[in-house]
Amino acid sequence: MARNYMLLPKHRLEAFSDAVLAIVITLLVLEIRVPAESAGLGHALLAEWRAYLAYLVSFAFVGGWWIAHNNLTRFVRSGTGAFFRFNLLALLFVSFIPFTASLMGAHGGDEGSRVATMVFGVDLLLASLTLSLLGRYVANNKEMVEDEAARADVRAFVRGRWWAIGLLVVAVAVDAVSSQTAVVLYLACAILFIFEPLIPRRSNASAGCGPG
Amino acid sequence: MARNYMLLPKHRLEAFSDAVLAIVITLLVLEIRVPAESAGLGHALLAEWRAYLAYLVSFAFVGGWWIAHNNLTRFVRSGTGAFFRFNLLALLFVSFIPFTASLMGAHGGDEGSRVATMVFGVDLLLASLTLSLLGRYVANNKEMVEDEAARADVRAFVRGRWWAIGLLVVAVAVDAVSSQTAVVLYLACAILFIFEPLIPRRSNASAGCGPG
Amino acid sequence: MARNYMLLPKHRLEAFSDAVLAIVITLLVLEIRVPAESAGLGHALLAEWRAYLAYLVSFAFVGGWWIAHNNLTRFVRSGTGAFFRFNLLALLFVSFIPFTASLMGAHGGDEGSRVATMVFGVDLLLASLTLSLLGRYVANNKEMVEDEAARADVRAFVRGRWWAIGLLVVAVAVDAVSSQTAVVLYLACAILFIFEPLIPRRSNASAGCGPG
Amino acid sequence: MARNYMLLPKHRLEAFSDAVLAIVITLLVLEIRVPAESAGLGHALLAEWRAYLAYLVSFAFVGGWWIAHNNLTRFVRSGTGAFFRFNLLALLFVSFIPFTASLMGAHGGDEGSRVATMVFGVDLLLASLTLSLLGRYVANNKEMVEDEAARADVRAFVRGRWWAIGLLVVAVAVDAVSSQTAVVLYLACAILFIFEPLIPRRSNASAGCGPG
Repeated sequence: MARNYMLLPKHRLEAFSDAVLAIVITLLVLEIRVPAESAGLGHALLAEWRAYLAYLVSFAFVGGWWIAHNNLTRFVRSGTGAFFRFNLLALLFVSFIPFTASLMGAHGGDEGSRVATMVFGVDLLLASLTLSLLGRYVANNKEMVEDEAARADVRAFVRGRWWAIGLLVVAVAVDAVSSQTAVVLYLACAILFIFEPLIPRRSNASAGCGPG
Repeated sequence: MARNYMLLPKHRLEAFSDAVLAIVITLLVLEIRVPAESAGLGHALLAEWRAYLAYLVSFAFVGGWWIAHNNLTRFVRSGTGAFFRFNLLALLFVSFIPFTASLMGAHGGDEGSRVATMVFGVDLLLASLTLSLLGRYVANNKEMVEDEAARADVRAFVRGRWWAIGLLVVAVAVDAVSSQTAVVLYLACAILFIFEPLIPRRSNASAGCGPG
Repeated sequence: MARNYMLLPKHRLEAFSDAVLAIVITLLVLEIRVPAESAGLGHALLAEWRAYLAYLVSFAFVGGWWIAHNNLTRFVRSGTGAFFRFNLLALLFVSFIPFTASLMGAHGGDEGSRVATMVFGVDLLLASLTLSLLGRYVANNKEMVEDEAARADVRAFVRGRWWAIGLLVVAVAVDAVSSQTAVVLYLACAILFIFEPLIPRRSNASAGCGPG
Repeated sequence: MARNYMLLPKHRLEAFSDAVLAIVITLLVLEIRVPAESAGLGHALLAEWRAYLAYLVSFAFVGGWWIAHNNLTRFVRSGTGAFFRFNLLALLFVSFIPFTASLMGAHGGDEGSRVATMVFGVDLLLASLTLSLLGRYVANNKEMVEDEAARADVRAFVRGRWWAIGLLVVAVAVDAVSSQTAVVLYLACAILFIFEPLIPRRSNASAGCGPG
């Protein structure tokens, strides 16, 4: 424990991140408008498909981000101050999603569509990138993980995410041509992040145990 | 622990689910409008009984869902990736409740009433079904539970919920005839879920202990 | 542990209650309107003193309720289903506070003032009463606490709250004469709940330890 | 443990504070308006830079406050009632930030600018001061920390924050001359709080372990 004197316990980093992600994922529904029309309510509801799609993409993305964050922090014993600060930066981009998603929902069908989907895509990209960089930081800081095997596990986690991030870059670029296709690609990326296989752990890190 | 290498610790699944459910149950109150009338405020408040009823049904349903989720996860040691993803799907339907409840609250008394209560009921049904399927998934994955007794406990949990889900199906069907009766049946289902008896555990799973 | 087979672990009850209370206490600030006037903004801000007072009373009340809930659950080892359900009922009244507080904030100075402060006060009263009854329930259920000393501690907790609840009853009654005085009494009750001394524990319950 | 009889477990104080801070940091984004203009959406978005700046300053401040709170509570074993009450007071000022930040965002460019940035700055100052006083309280209460070394650590924590608080006082004073400069100084303070180095622990407090 001698080297541990500048480390913060990880249970609050997990609790704080879980709460931020839970709020982001739940706030998204507040952006969906209840139609005022009573006659033809069914049609009015269906006409809002853009808002539901924005909700679904965002929910899937935040959900996948949360699983990846779980996947990463189970290898961490305790965190440096920089780890906590870096995690805050990653959460900054995630907590911006309710704004960028409602921007996309509001302007998806009009002249502002290209700008709106671009802003949304760049936000997803920054949130994904910072999480991968957070993983690299963990892999480069021996005192935060149990042993060499755990470091290799974290490196595998980071490697396994590059291609989905590459697809996000493509999606943002595609937005210059067609914002509709870009949204479909965002949904694809979000689903890929959710179904990204977990890293088989070689290390003895604390999965299955309580916080800490 | 050898088989455990692809499992995620359950304490974050519980913390995240608790936060999502706490937010959903608390956001519901934001849908109730403060009347602008100052003379006759009492009457104006009573005239909003539909909004209170929507609040009560939703609160009871989410509360009962939370207790059932507790009832289930106490048998789980740690989760596969699929368990985490399936749990997200179940939370998707729960986090949609503030929208469907406010839809029902807004259109309960007008032409849109049938559609609105139908959407609300289908949402409750999907949230209930996915939780039961989550239970089946746990029962079918030996590495997530302690022993055979715990699997039998989880199977009893799943079996004990079918009749309330059946009643929800009836309630949604009844909506085609009378949306008023449907709402009363939704309330009945929500209360039944809350008062559903806990499963007597035969296993030695970690109830009464800390997370994990 | 033989008797423990129908009990749920308490760490999720605490996590869920903490999240609900944190959301309620934080949502309250959303009810305060940003004045549109730019000239004389200072005066416009001061003119909203009713909203700040409603915020302060509610914050103090929810904060005190949270401390009392902490004070109670530290004696509990694990909960029956009824304990979880009763706790939900108590949270129902607490989570109604953002609505009743903004009702009082909006109508504090007009004809609706009496009704608005009455509704707010009755909400505080029901939230306080259900917490005390939750305490009585704990005291009457041997399997939820460690030993006889813990039961005596919980009984002392319940006894120590009756007089503040009595004062709340008086405040609600006073509202029939003067809603201004009633608000002052609500604030007094909220502060009394916050400063209510903790019960000196005779038992060896798990204060100072982790969840569980 | 004999002296422990009036202490509350710290895990709920941490969970409650984490939830409040997570909500505050996430609610901030709701204050940013989605522009209604579809032609020239890009320009309309850029024109809202004041709202983004308010978001960034607040996010950085709340994030830094959370890290400092982590830094402090890791030295605490369990809390007195006064510690819990004092922590609530500090959270009161933090949970007021969504209101004061949106006030600053709304009036940053008009006649009300001086008052709005002043109110925001005083809120940050009170939130910072109460956290430092909370640290002093811990340092003065032997029964809350492990040993003398931990008390010295907490005293170092408190000392290390005075200069950033001094800068906040300067920023509030500068607002009388230029509210623009004041906002820049608030951002500087927020960033300083985030990058404030952790205290090297001499004590054996529970960093790296689970709650408790």
